[in-house]
Amino acid sequence: MELEFLHWLRPRLPSHPQLHVGPGDDAAVVRLADRAALVVTSDLVSDGVDFELGRVSPRRIGHKALAINLSDLAAMAARPVTAIVSLLLPRVGGAELARELYEGILPLANLHGISIAGGDTNTWDGKLAISITALGETTEHGSLLRSGAKPGDRILVTGHFGGSILDRHLDVEPRVQEALWLHANSELHAGIDCSDGLSHDVWQICQASQCGAILNLDQIPISAAARQLAMEQPGKGSALEHALHDGEDFELIMAVPERVAAELIQTQPLRSLSGAPVLLSDIGKFVEEQGLWSQAATGAHQVLSPRGYQH
Amino acid sequence: MELEFLHWLRPRLPSHPQLHVGPGDDAAVVRLADRAALVVTSDLVSDGVDFELGRVSPRRIGHKALAINLSDLAAMAARPVTAIVSLLLPRVGGAELARELYEGILPLANLHGISIAGGDTNTWDGKLAISITALGETTEHGSLLRSGAKPGDRILVTGHFGGSILDRHLDVEPRVQEALWLHANSELHAGIDCSDGLSHDVWQICQASQCGAILNLDQIPISAAARQLAMEQPGKGSALEHALHDGEDFELIMAVPERVAAELIQTQPLRSLSGAPVLLSDIGKFVEEQGLWSQAATGAHQVLSPRGYQH
Repeated sequence: MELEFLHWLRPRLPSHPQLHVGPGDDAAVVRLADRAALVVTSDLVSDGVDFELGRVSPRRIGHKALAINLSDLAAMAARPVTAIVSLLLPRVGGAELARELYEGILPLANLHGISIAGGDTNTWDGKLAISITALGETTEHGSLLRSGAKPGDRILVTGHFGGSILDRHLDVEPRVQEALWLHANSELHAGIDCSDGLSHDVWQICQASQCGAILNLDQIPISAAARQLAMEQPGKGSALEHALHDGEDFELIMAVPERVAAELIQTQPLRSLSGAPVLLSDIGKFVEEQGLWSQAATGAHQVLSPRGYQH
Repeated sequence: MELEFLHWLRPRLPSHPQLHVGPGDDAAVVRLADRAALVVTSDLVSDGVDFELGRVSPRRIGHKALAINLSDLAAMAARPVTAIVSLLLPRVGGAELARELYEGILPLANLHGISIAGGDTNTWDGKLAISITALGETTEHGSLLRSGAKPGDRILVTGHFGGSILDRHLDVEPRVQEALWLHANSELHAGIDCSDGLSHDVWQICQASQCGAILNLDQIPISAAARQLAMEQPGKGSALEHALHDGEDFELIMAVPERVAAELIQTQPLRSLSGAPVLLSDIGKFVEEQGLWSQAATGAHQVLSPRGYQH
């Protein structure tokens, strides 16, 4: 089926000034900007693990598979350039499924102005799996690592947290534009995208930066979905707990010098690609002592166990 | 299992001067050579389609999964830099299987001096699948495309063809070194690696270059395995037919100006990475008229149907 599918796909693939040789040769040739370094990330998602085919439209699955890769590029404050899309399709209905997946992949690629440089499309007797590698480039401001947080830095986050399982985990809006803007117009010390849970991923920055963090519980931006979950399933944790530990929010978590953070919070400069305002919140600070703590509105400190999705 | 496996894997990953940020952050950062373009290719192989787990050692499967990607970079005459390795593992025995796969991947990566920049490692209820994306860079001589063959060019090939199914398809020796040497020291017009069958892949060059080709049947370098297959299964084609159509030889097929080709054939300059001589053969020529023909030792022409692996 690969040839037939490729005949359908090729005319739909966006051209791109940086894609010198596109799909069709043994490999693609991509020209990065002068002096840019390559930034590369890869995610593999599969039926029964990351989504349930049959319960979710393939279009949304395709969207998510690319979006989570773009979110990783955003976490590096890298400019996305192209993606490699490999599909492992069930034999029955594989071609139709591939087309539907691309109906989620292509609009997102177009929105972010990236090409699809190639990939592989195979069928087999097993379930659907999607492996996407996203390639970006550093800007003149370099890349944003997890390891640059300094004691005293504020913890800034985009958007809201928790309850993504209800819906949002599929309709990921990678914060590419937001990360590029922040990295170009302010001073960021470290960054990560929240995939495994807010507490878990703040702790990732702490470990990479050899520092600790205190989260101000009353400042965590809790999503409506987290509140809904807490109401519907009271035994499974409060809305705050969902926000702290659920994961798949795909929001940015950043270490920002105190003065810069205050300015950003005051001006709330962020807009998404669609033009909608994106909330920026200051949820705590990085500290010298290694560990993770929560601070209630009363000022009481408590050890906070980083929890989240365990691979 | 991902964390535990990563603790095993990380210290075994080769460092590399071009890998500025390796696995462990949201993405890897790779610095290409000045003025080099990025060359990128991806192959997805799976149990039951490309190999039979249980009949073949995982080490050889890992080797092949990376080798076929490097072979694609060789076909572009690109210098390999790094690879992204994503594994989808059966839940039972997944960690052990992953380690064995890497016992095939890492020695090949080391042999070619490339790093592993990242990837993804997941388990699921299905069978093993491996998605590898290889990243290379163009040399000062640019990239070698399928589309540059000119009427009058000779068809040069490395190695021997046919019967790879007996063994060789697993122990692929990607012709990276050979392609880089030839591209730097002689004039090549077009190139491809033979994955789907000699006749099929010569025809790929013809289609991309809008020309035709005549293959001299008495000049085709037939592998010992092709002769063995023909002897053991006389109903399944002659040794020559195996050489023409079997596929998975992963040898280079190149379009080379006549004078250059004659010099190369006379001097037989090629050595593999291990230092062994690599046969160069002149098996025919590209012609203006679009089509594929065979020419017997008697001089008789015949239309040749490109056959090979159909995706």
